[in-house]
Formats: sequence, C-alpha cells, structure tokens
Amino acid sequence: MAIPTLLRSQDIAALPGEHKTHFLNNNAQRLNKSLGDASGLTGLGVHLIEVQPGFDTTEYHAHYYEDECVYVLEGQALARVGNEETTLQAGDFIAYPAGGEPHSLHNNGNGVLRCLVIGQRLDHDVADYPDKHQRIFRQRGMPWSLVDIDALTYPRGKPDK
Amino acid sequence: MAIPTLLRSQDIAALPGEHKTHFLNNNAQRLNKSLGDASGLTGLGVHLIEVQPGFDTTEYHAHYYEDECVYVLEGQALARVGNEETTLQAGDFIAYPAGGEPHSLHNNGNGVLRCLVIGQRLDHDVADYPDKHQRIFRQRGMPWSLVDIDALTYPRGKPDK
Amino acid sequence: MAIPTLLRSQDIAALPGEHKTHFLNNNAQRLNKSLGDASGLTGLGVHLIEVQPGFDTTEYHAHYYEDECVYVLEGQALARVGNEETTLQAGDFIAYPAGGEPHSLHNNGNGVLRCLVIGQRLDHDVADYPDKHQRIFRQRGMPWSLVDIDALTYPRGKPDK
Amino acid sequence: MAIPTLLRSQDIAALPGEHKTHFLNNNAQRLNKSLGDASGLTGLGVHLIEVQPGFDTTEYHAHYYEDECVYVLEGQALARVGNEETTLQAGDFIAYPAGGEPHSLHNNGNGVLRCLVIGQRLDHDVADYPDKHQRIFRQRGMPWSLVDIDALTYPRGKPDK
Repeated sequence: MAIPTLLRSQDIAALPGEHKTHFLNNNAQRLNKSLGDASGLTGLGVHLIEVQPGFDTTEYHAHYYEDECVYVLEGQALARVGNEETTLQAGDFIAYPAGGEPHSLHNNGNGVLRCLVIGQRLDHDVADYPDKHQRIFRQRGMPWSLVDIDALTYPRGKPDK
Repeated sequence: MAIPTLLRSQDIAALPGEHKTHFLNNNAQRLNKSLGDASGLTGLGVHLIEVQPGFDTTEYHAHYYEDECVYVLEGQALARVGNEETTLQAGDFIAYPAGGEPHSLHNNGNGVLRCLVIGQRLDHDVADYPDKHQRIFRQRGMPWSLVDIDALTYPRGKPDK
Repeated sequence: MAIPTLLRSQDIAALPGEHKTHFLNNNAQRLNKSLGDASGLTGLGVHLIEVQPGFDTTEYHAHYYEDECVYVLEGQALARVGNEETTLQAGDFIAYPAGGEPHSLHNNGNGVLRCLVIGQRLDHDVADYPDKHQRIFRQRGMPWSLVDIDALTYPRGKPDK
Repeated sequence: MAIPTLLRSQDIAALPGEHKTHFLNNNAQRLNKSLGDASGLTGLGVHLIEVQPGFDTTEYHAHYYEDECVYVLEGQALARVGNEETTLQAGDFIAYPAGGEPHSLHNNGNGVLRCLVIGQRLDHDVADYPDKHQRIFRQRGMPWSLVDIDALTYPRGKPDK
C-alpha cells in the first residue's frame, strides 16, 4: 500500500503546479508546486518554485511574524536583502527571520532557478512591501487586506524606528 | 506576610485608576481600574470601570478575535448590541463573543455605573468601529494601527458578508 | 428581539448549573454556572460558583500557562496561596498568574460563598496538585492526562527549582 | 558587507554540526547541522542531517501538534510510516502531518544519507514513541518530560481510538 504523504521525485516532476504572478509585481512570476499542500501539511508552507531567467520570485517584502527561508536547488539568483545584494548558487541557504530585512530573489542566470521556499503558516501575519509603500494584513478568517502605509494612523502613537 | 496578588475591596477602592477617553468618542469616558494589571495577570484583562450618568463605556465596536464580557456591579446601562438595545441592571452579565455583533454601553441611569469588564489579551486582534467606518489592527510589537475601511483593498478578493 | 448573549440576573439565578466534585478532592464540591458557556464565549472561562460552608472550591493547584482569578460576590473564604493563608470577603479580588503559587479557597463562613471565577482557555495547559504529587496535562484534542510527578523522567535534564 | 542570514554551500559544509544520539535509540545517530539556528530562525526548525549506512535518523515517533517533513538530498533511506515501509531516494519528499502516523528513516544504502529535515517549533508539543510505549511532553519553559504511557490516568475518561 502507498504512503499518502510521500511525494517521489517523479511525483513532484508530474505536479502541474500553479503559475503565479505577484499582485504587486508583474515581473514576479513563478511556477509554484506546494509540496506541503500536496502531502497534507497545514502548519508549514513548503514550496518547490521555478523561476525563469529575468524574473523575480516575489515582490520585495518583509514579514513581521512569519519566519521564511530558501534553499537553492538549481540555477542562480540575485538576492536583495535590505541594502545588500549578492548572487546565490545551488546549495546555498538564506533565512529571512520574522521582523528582519525585506528581501527578494531575481533569476540573473541563463537557466531555470529552482528553490525550496519554506515558511511558517501562522493565523496572523503582517508584511510590508517597501518599494510599493504598502502593508498587508493577513489574518485567519479575514480577507488579505492591503493598505497604503500613509493611510494608517496611530491612536497611541508610533514608535521611532 | 501578604499575598501580593490579592486586592482587598479597600485596596480596590484606593486604586487611583486611569481616566480614559476613547480616541474615537469624546463621550466615552471612564475611570478604569485594571485589577489584572495591579495583581500580575498578563493573559487576561480584568477591569473595574466606573462611568458617570450620560457617558458611554467605549466606542461602539466589535472584536474579531478577542472574547469580551461585562458583569454589572452597580447602576444601570443601555446596552447597544448590533441592532438591539436593552437596559442592564446590577447582576446582569453580557458576553461579546469574538466575531460577533458590535456593542457599547451607555449609562442611562442617575448614579454611577460600575462594571467588571473582562477580555482576552491576544497577541493579535482586529476590531471594527462601524459608526466611524474605521478598523484597528493591534498586534504584538507593532503600534495600534487605525484605518478607514475604504482605504483597504483585497488582492485575493473580498468574501460576501 | 432578545440579545442572545445577555444573561440577566434572573436568568443566572434560574440556570441549573452543574454540581461538580473535584476528581482529586471529595471535599471540593461546587455548584458551577458557566456564564461564558451559556452566552457563547469560547476563549474565556467565566464561572459563577457557589460553595457551601466547610467545602473547598477546588483541589490546591497551580497552572503553568493559564491565568486565573476570583472576584468574591458573597460570603467569605479562606484563601491558601503558597505558604500563606488569609480570609477573603465580598468585594475582594485575587489573581493567580500562570506559573505562580498553588492556590485554593475554603468556605470558612456560615453562609454560601459566591464567586466569579475567570480564566484563560488555552489550547495547552499543565497544572500541578502539590498535595497529591500529581501533574495534569491538558491539550486540545487529547484526553486530560494525570500522572504522578515521580513517574516523569527528563531526557534533557531537569532545571533546579 | 555580508548578509548575516546567508549560509553559502561552503559555509554549510564547514559547519561542525552536532553529533546526536537519540535518548531512546542508540542506533539513531546523526550529524545535525541546524541551518535555521545558524541563520537566526526561531519559528522553524531547518536541519541538514547526515546519517551513515546502517543507522536511523531518529526513534520511530509521531508528533501530535508539530508538522514535520523531509527532503532527501543524497543517498537512500528506508522509510517506516505506520505499518508501511518503502525506500526513498534523492529528490523524494515525505511529510509527517501533526497527528498522523509514527515514522522514522533508516539508511539502507551504501553511502551517506543527507536530508533536509524541516519542522514547526511550537510552544507546546506532545510526541509518542510507540515501540517504547513512551510519551513526551515538550512545553515552553518546562523540561522535556517523558512518561510510560501506562503511567497516565484519565480523570475525564479516554476517547476510543
């Protein structure tokens, strides 16, 4: 009998995946195979993503509550993290701790970029898109809610950064 | 030796409390004695509040995640809950389950209104102020953030209500 | 139309409540009216309890994760908290912060003891019954599990207390 | 300037890692490189593990609350999941959803087994070791506590399985 939570490499190759374009970045296009969803995980996001040369993995962003990380399986990527940029290769691992610097990857190579993207799945998270001056609120049971950061007011004051 | 988490009735009477006016409602003025804070609780809010005749306890609001409830100790109050209104007396208890109807109390009597107001203290909560068309996001480590509900957009769509 | 989350004082008086004897203490007998359950709360426990003279509210215990507190409405009680004992009267409030001293109340008066007992309702909690040398593990989706503290072993070592 | 949360493949190779033997299984020996700890993650466990031929990754176990999964990078492993056994190869992915079947891996090949082992890091978890008839309780701020399952009693009854 089969083990229903097992995805063999050929099963993964056969997954259709989802073609995703980020709602804030038309150049962020990826083929997203959610290994976690396909195998019954609910508390973790585990995605095998493929990005073609010249495209981004996502819009430059930072999570306030969810840890995220990437393990590069194939290809290369220009990582932008805060004010730093560097090129990643297969076998490299990069972490994005919650509350840390904003980040994104850009396929600056000639072939496909394949990565494992792993993240927490919390009931509540907030993320910023600094290049777009937008903040998103994601909370269990509510629609994802995006707002221009200037539209927020702070009835109890705003801490200095 | 004393028990540091005990507040005798005379200790409670002697607490100065905090005079609070709601940031969205000048008529919502209360003397707030946080029994929980004074006795070392962190996971629950327990407040003894006093409201003078003609004033409100709070701005009409609903929490999405935190349960709240009120036990009336003295006086009377007009409770507004969703589209209903009714007068509460000493000994009455009213619950506001998370995700339920918006609510507020108004002292419609001749004497002071004294209540115990009890609520969860979660790391993440969202509340709506329907009369003001405002939403507040409260999350651990971030400033309270208020926004006009029309300023929100929904990149993944908005569920019908 | 009625407000379904409102319990008037006469509604509370008419609640049958539950006669509870603690599984570790035959002298801990109370009439327990869960105001929270009757009004739709799930994230908070709010109980109106009545204890007859000579009986205890509960077995002497301490929670590791859930805050708890008591507001005395009527009668008197001998509070035992850690190594301290003192008598409480109507209008007194006592908090039991999570991780604090073990505690219990004993009706040492001539009339009924009536209290509001308020507590967090977390997915996970642990409590100790020091007089019985027992620990209980309560976790969402699992049965309450009681164990003699000497039956536990500590594969990574035990911190000094 | 460097990106402190980046571990290049050569950095990972140079990590000393930790030689771990499971406290319930002398044959479960692994070299454990916590990529997450080395890069600042706290909400996720991400481990690169190496197991020599003939050894196990862990003691056969099941988590009640934490999702876990494994991506095989090199070598092969006999996976035991519930009553099933099958051999995994590089590129295979297996998920262990919380509350699911117990599981373990055994290096049944001739070379090293290298895997990414990824898991949630929750404040509270419980795990069973069915072959040893033991249960472990892991809770934030308390020592890991192991108990023979027969030492537990159920004051509110035990659900049928």
